[in-house]
Amino acid sequence: MSNWENFNKFFITDKALGFSLDLSKIPFDQSYLNKIESKSKIALEQMQALEKGEIANPDENRMVGHYWLRTPKLAPTKSIQDDISSTINEIKIFCSNVLSTNIKGQTGKPFSHVLFIGIGGSALGPQLLVDSLTTTNSKIKFLFFDNTDADGFERIFSSIKEILGQTLVVVVSKSGATTETKNGMLETKAFFEENALNFEKHAIAISCADSGLEKLAKSSNWLKIFHIWDWVGGRTSIFSAVGLLPVGLLGADIDSFLQGASEMDALTRAEKNNPALLMASSWLFEKGKNLVALPYFDRLLLFSRYLQQLIMESIGKEKNLNGQVVHEGLSVFGNKGSTDQHAFVQQLRDGKNDFFVTFVNIFSAPLGRIELEPGIRNRDHLFGFYLGTRKALSEANRDSISISFEKFNAKTLGALLALFERTVGFYASMLEINAYHQPGVEAGKKAASGFIELKKQLINAVKGSKEVFTADEIQSKLNGNFEVDDIYYLLKFMACNNEITEQQESLEPKLSCFKAKGA
Amino acid sequence: MSNWENFNKFFITDKALGFSLDLSKIPFDQSYLNKIESKSKIALEQMQALEKGEIANPDENRMVGHYWLRTPKLAPTKSIQDDISSTINEIKIFCSNVLSTNIKGQTGKPFSHVLFIGIGGSALGPQLLVDSLTTTNSKIKFLFFDNTDADGFERIFSSIKEILGQTLVVVVSKSGATTETKNGMLETKAFFEENALNFEKHAIAISCADSGLEKLAKSSNWLKIFHIWDWVGGRTSIFSAVGLLPVGLLGADIDSFLQGASEMDALTRAEKNNPALLMASSWLFEKGKNLVALPYFDRLLLFSRYLQQLIMESIGKEKNLNGQVVHEGLSVFGNKGSTDQHAFVQQLRDGKNDFFVTFVNIFSAPLGRIELEPGIRNRDHLFGFYLGTRKALSEANRDSISISFEKFNAKTLGALLALFERTVGFYASMLEINAYHQPGVEAGKKAASGFIELKKQLINAVKGSKEVFTADEIQSKLNGNFEVDDIYYLLKFMACNNEITEQQESLEPKLSCFKAKGA
Repeated sequence: MSNWENFNKFFITDKALGFSLDLSKIPFDQSYLNKIESKSKIALEQMQALEKGEIANPDENRMVGHYWLRTPKLAPTKSIQDDISSTINEIKIFCSNVLSTNIKGQTGKPFSHVLFIGIGGSALGPQLLVDSLTTTNSKIKFLFFDNTDADGFERIFSSIKEILGQTLVVVVSKSGATTETKNGMLETKAFFEENALNFEKHAIAISCADSGLEKLAKSSNWLKIFHIWDWVGGRTSIFSAVGLLPVGLLGADIDSFLQGASEMDALTRAEKNNPALLMASSWLFEKGKNLVALPYFDRLLLFSRYLQQLIMESIGKEKNLNGQVVHEGLSVFGNKGSTDQHAFVQQLRDGKNDFFVTFVNIFSAPLGRIELEPGIRNRDHLFGFYLGTRKALSEANRDSISISFEKFNAKTLGALLALFERTVGFYASMLEINAYHQPGVEAGKKAASGFIELKKQLINAVKGSKEVFTADEIQSKLNGNFEVDDIYYLLKFMACNNEITEQQESLEPKLSCFKAKGA
Repeated sequence: MSNWENFNKFFITDKALGFSLDLSKIPFDQSYLNKIESKSKIALEQMQALEKGEIANPDENRMVGHYWLRTPKLAPTKSIQDDISSTINEIKIFCSNVLSTNIKGQTGKPFSHVLFIGIGGSALGPQLLVDSLTTTNSKIKFLFFDNTDADGFERIFSSIKEILGQTLVVVVSKSGATTETKNGMLETKAFFEENALNFEKHAIAISCADSGLEKLAKSSNWLKIFHIWDWVGGRTSIFSAVGLLPVGLLGADIDSFLQGASEMDALTRAEKNNPALLMASSWLFEKGKNLVALPYFDRLLLFSRYLQQLIMESIGKEKNLNGQVVHEGLSVFGNKGSTDQHAFVQQLRDGKNDFFVTFVNIFSAPLGRIELEPGIRNRDHLFGFYLGTRKALSEANRDSISISFEKFNAKTLGALLALFERTVGFYASMLEINAYHQPGVEAGKKAASGFIELKKQLINAVKGSKEVFTADEIQSKLNGNFEVDDIYYLLKFMACNNEITEQQESLEPKLSCFKAKGA
């Protein structure tokens, strides 16, 4: 088959969305697709069942309903349909009231800033939306707490201190128990109070009904509560209040954003020419390689960070659905073109062939204020760099996918996100894994809470003691099976933060001595 | 050997820098280090020769002198020593004059903003410095052009339009020929002129002597020119004017930044307990895996993006120094902890074991405004998450390195950067590749300029024609060996941007017809 014929065979377009998917630079062919046909068929069937409300996340005994968020009539019960529709409506009304200054902060001034407190899916989607959909008409500026770094908090506090009375705080946690988010909220409440402002009059919660966060928000009369549901995972929550509230507050069109996703969902239910199914098939063909995401568009800088969670948390699994150990994974990185051509495309072209690129190309956007040569403006160069890199990689037998949209707006961004959600779901079916749980995250949390316990024990062991001790000497005084290197790290941490004293610093940890302050 | 003994063996500290490197979670041992001893010896010798001014970049027949930037007396000639010292001095004087408002913009107002125009090493270092070293005392806010995306330019123009008279423009290009940077400069000049301001009175160049950019800046009387030299590569230019100017304008300490690097250089020249040599040895041990960079510190969010260029552009090579095809590479990704624990640490812990983590830990930093429990504040949780993840990964046989600094400031950041520069150099020696060229970048640029040529030909072929044509029909009218899919992409691009008309849109590219506008 000629290159041009192959291109036509593996180039899928949709006119309504101005969308195309180009898989012609993935060196698979029809015989490969025939070979995996049964996998594709099962993936489609499982997706149908998921959309109908089957328990698609068996470990957690949950339905997986993010597709209902943009097409509520698909939801399996009337009550869920109504919940979704009424929440969308509430969000629109609330955003409209904030933007028209019907809703204001305690001091009576209109809101100009949002401090968005969340982590993982409660931050990555909103961050992407804010970076990509902000326009000169956007009235609200967003800042984020997405960690439990007090230094990071202070950087942001210092930038909003003067306009704290005009700052809306959005706290996002399904359960309310997420440590980083809870800590950020408590720190923010303290900051409001230090500045003689009422936190509650500035605070919104996005949470599940009856969660600790919802109870708190209700009992202390927060400005507003929006619901999410246990059938929406964090990494697919961007079409819930988590993403719709930022879209609305930026002045972008919530309905278009949902519509774009809904249209892509329709395309990716098809048995033939299904872009998500074909993209998942190409991932299977490229199995074992890294996915490098390269949008040639500044507004999509954070897209790969968003994809990291969506893909890696969904696909990075120890066991398959039968309980067999499989250690699956698909690593994602990338920033944007042509910027990354001056960073790591050297390795992509010449180095280890352990990746496939996913380009995102926007055909129409501002070309530039000036003509650089007759007929040539800035965007011509950007587009040339995209095509040039696609070609140069292909010539060096490096594979790539190209996703193109004619325009970039809330609708096409919605479609782009929906395309990847569906692709991840199909690919997980092909690998026979559960895309919708994250057991490894729990393990990390448990390990971390062990260190809080260790610190408490260290405080008790040291307090009032006149002794000078090394890390291994103190180990025997503790309840629990703590490793000496971990104890050493914590003692060093406490010494550096003036909670205890490092008596005798040594090049060797085993000779480092610590004692209580002032002892 | 017990875990604690192994920890002591592979834990290196330096008191002056408050630095430690923990390789105890890399499962190598002394016998491995013995096995690669000859490689380590050669790496040290080659580094010595490089620092003495040998042609360490043979393909480009260049010395590699970034280590001289922080220890000028090491440079091989008095003239280079003087160039470095006098440039540092000029930068300090200039920054001091800007901050004290002795140097002002055309309208007589002090500078409040910098628009920094550069790409690759001319942007990634400055972006990292700005994000990590900005404090509440910093008077200057930085914005960046690091691409040739006119939409991206407009976003930034709209944010500085009102304070354009207080905006300093820094244009960074060694040659002046970098397309993206040149385009950004021309667009900015046009924007100044549209706003009735003199671009030249606001513009600084950082460039090599006698480059096109320097000539332009001289002939049109730019505010200032700072030199870089052909013996400084873009990805190691952060200690030249490229990085020192931002450090100075942020109000951070240029001397401390240089001093930190210089002290780390001294540590990494040692034959024994050399942290860079040991880190390079661990990279060799982990060869074939991805490097996941996880600083548990918000200010280091951009560190992995910086490392991507430093490492991947240096290590991602087709051929070794003997001309043999080796396709080396070391992929880098990561953002920050604990944020990434809610994104992709699920895959790291449970999924494919194709990576090793490099943690960066800062012992002392603000703990938090409030006590969450007795003795427990926000930073305790952050530190607990770091130790917990280190432990959870290790228990799942996932390897990690921990780099710690007691404090974070310009000095320790300088040391951290120098550690990785030296490690990359050693690792390249071990792989017998040239770390200091980037032949693949050239190939990409050539391919891109081919598309500019193609667009010009398409404009000529279409102009004045009444014909309706498909992509393959127009191919025969062009001079050059263009693929039809590339022609199709460009025609579609021109149609979407209203430069020509798409007459009949089809689901199949081969049936899509185009014609001149108005024909």
